[in-house]
Amino acid sequence: MNKATARAHPNIALIKYWGKRDQALFLPATSSFSMTLDGLSATTTVEFSERFSADQVELDGRPIEGKALLRFQMLFDRVRALSGVDCPVRVASTNDFPTAAGLASSAAGGAALAAATSWAAGLDLGAHDLSRLSRQFSGSACRSVEGGFCEWRRGERPDGQDSFAVQVAPPAHWPSLRMVVAVCSGAEKPLSSRAAMQHSVETSPFFAAWVDQVPRDLALAKEALLRRDLGALGPIVETNACRIHAVALGAHPPTFYMRPLTIEVIDAVQSLRRDEGVGAWFTLDAGPNPVVLCEEKDAPRVAARLRRIEGVERLVTAGPGEGVCRLDEHLF
Amino acid sequence: MNKATARAHPNIALIKYWGKRDQALFLPATSSFSMTLDGLSATTTVEFSERFSADQVELDGRPIEGKALLRFQMLFDRVRALSGVDCPVRVASTNDFPTAAGLASSAAGGAALAAATSWAAGLDLGAHDLSRLSRQFSGSACRSVEGGFCEWRRGERPDGQDSFAVQVAPPAHWPSLRMVVAVCSGAEKPLSSRAAMQHSVETSPFFAAWVDQVPRDLALAKEALLRRDLGALGPIVETNACRIHAVALGAHPPTFYMRPLTIEVIDAVQSLRRDEGVGAWFTLDAGPNPVVLCEEKDAPRVAARLRRIEGVERLVTAGPGEGVCRLDEHLF
Repeated sequence: MNKATARAHPNIALIKYWGKRDQALFLPATSSFSMTLDGLSATTTVEFSERFSADQVELDGRPIEGKALLRFQMLFDRVRALSGVDCPVRVASTNDFPTAAGLASSAAGGAALAAATSWAAGLDLGAHDLSRLSRQFSGSACRSVEGGFCEWRRGERPDGQDSFAVQVAPPAHWPSLRMVVAVCSGAEKPLSSRAAMQHSVETSPFFAAWVDQVPRDLALAKEALLRRDLGALGPIVETNACRIHAVALGAHPPTFYMRPLTIEVIDAVQSLRRDEGVGAWFTLDAGPNPVVLCEEKDAPRVAARLRRIEGVERLVTAGPGEGVCRLDEHLF
Repeated sequence: MNKATARAHPNIALIKYWGKRDQALFLPATSSFSMTLDGLSATTTVEFSERFSADQVELDGRPIEGKALLRFQMLFDRVRALSGVDCPVRVASTNDFPTAAGLASSAAGGAALAAATSWAAGLDLGAHDLSRLSRQFSGSACRSVEGGFCEWRRGERPDGQDSFAVQVAPPAHWPSLRMVVAVCSGAEKPLSSRAAMQHSVETSPFFAAWVDQVPRDLALAKEALLRRDLGALGPIVETNACRIHAVALGAHPPTFYMRPLTIEVIDAVQSLRRDEGVGAWFTLDAGPNPVVLCEEKDAPRVAARLRRIEGVERLVTAGPGEGVCRLDEHLF
C-alpha cells in the first residue's frame, strides 16, 4: 500500500535563518540552529494511487490549488523520480496550532510532508536525505526532521547537496529547557517570510553584515547549549533574533514585524530578568509572536507574567521534542 | 555689557546622525540633513561678570551641577579663549517643549547657548563658526544655527574644523512643508542618544554599512528637497530613519527605542498613505516620538488621525523655521 502518515514538530531557531543565497534550491545564506518543540505538531497522510485523477492536497480541510499546489508538486516529482512510483498523489495535513503566525507551521508541515511522501513511495531515506528533501519544500522544515537541537548547515556546494540539518544534541541533552510561545494574534502575518527575506537580500544595506556575523553567534550559541549554560545562551539568542528584525527594518521600504503587543511582551521579559532575577530571554521569528527561553522551573512564572498582558491570546510551553515519526493511523 | 540672549529652534533630521568618529570632538561618522522647525524654541541668556563667584547654569529653573556642568564649561572656556573675556558666567535657558523626549531639545538649546555665549563675550562669529562651536557642545545643535534645510557635513579633518552645518535651502524654499510631531510620552527616554550611539558603534555589526550608505540617502534626499518632491523625499526619509533604529536594534545587547505607541503611530501613517492617499511619511529620532512629514494642506488630516490614538499626549505642527536670532529681552 502506497500510503503513509508522518507527524513532525515545529522548531524555533535560536540562531535565525534569514535570506537565501539560491532561491530556486532553497539554499540559505547562513547556517542556523534550532530547538524542535514537543507538544505542537503537524500530521500528514500521503497516498500514491492510480485511482486519483490528479494530485490533490488539503491543509486543515482547505484544498490547495494553483501556484500553491505547484510547490507541493515539485516535491512529489522529486520523490517520483527517486522512487519510480509514477501516479497521482493525495495529501491531507492538519496542524494543531495556528498557521502562518510565526510559529513555524511550515517547518512542521514540511518535514511531515517530505517524510510521509517518501515513505508512501516506498523510499527509506536517512535523516540527512530527508532533511535535504524537506529543505527543498520549505527551508526551515529541514530542521524539524530530527529532534532536540539541530544545526542547518548552509553548505558550500552550488547544487545544495551539502545543505541540510544535523542534530547537535538530542532532546535528552537538556530536557528542562523550555520555550514559552506567546501567541499574540491569530491573524496571518502581512508579508510571507519568503518575500520579506528576498526584500532584505535585495534592499537592506545590513544583509551582508548579517551573513558575516552569523558564524560567531552560531559558535557561541552551540557552545553555550552544549554546556547547558542558559545565562550565556539567552543573550546570544536575544541579540541574534533582533538582528534579523534589524536587517528587515533596514530594507527599502522597511519591513516591520514587531507589533505593539510584541514590544509589551519584550518589556515583560526584560522586567522579569532585571527586576525579578528570572533567567528568561526572548526570541522572535518573522512574525509577531515572541517566544521566551527559560528553564522548566521558571516557565510557570514566565507564563503567568505574559498572561497578564491584554491581547496575548494563548501561551504554549514546549520542551525539546523528537524528530519526525511514522504513525499507523491515517487522516483518510 | 557682557550679556546676550539668543533664541533657536529644534531641528529634525531628514537624514539621521547616528554615531561619532571622534567622541571628544563630536565628529560624526556621517553627514546628516535636517529641517529647522518654527514654533518650538529654546531661549538662553548668558552673562559674563566678575560679580559671579563661579559659573552657574540653570535649565528650566533647575541648576546644573557636577559632570553635566563640565560640559557647559568646555564651551565657556572655548569662548573665553577666543574672546579674551576671562570671568565667570551665568546662564539661564528655557524650552517651550519637553526635554529629552526625542524632540531635539538639546539641538535648540545648544545653538542658543553657543550663540548667546559668543555674543555675550563680544564675539561676532559667522554662521559656520557658530555651527562648529554648537557642534562641540551637542552634535546636532550645529544644524539649528541656520534656518530652513541644513546639511551637517561630516568633514574630513581630524581636528573637526570642517565639520559644521551649511544651509542647503532657506525656509522660503518650501514654506508649505510640515512636520507633525506626535508627543507620545513625557517620560525621559531610557538611554541617552550619546550612550546608545556609542553602543551601536562598538557592538552593532550594521554600523559600518550604515556609514557606507548614508551618502546615497543624503544625495537623494537633497535632490528631492531641492525639487520640492515630497513623493520622492518621503520614502527616503522613512527608510533612513528606520535604518538608525535597525543599527541600534542590532547592537549587543539590543537597543530598543520603539514603544507600542510608536508602532501604532507608524501604522496610522502607513494607513493614511495606503488607504486614503495622503502624502505622509514618518521619521523617528532616538526616542519614542514619531514625526510625520507632509504638506500643509494635509497636516490637519494627519493631526486628526494621530489625535485618535490613545496615548498621544500632544501634537505639534511645525513648518521650516529660522536660524538662531538675538533677542533684546533677557531671562534675568
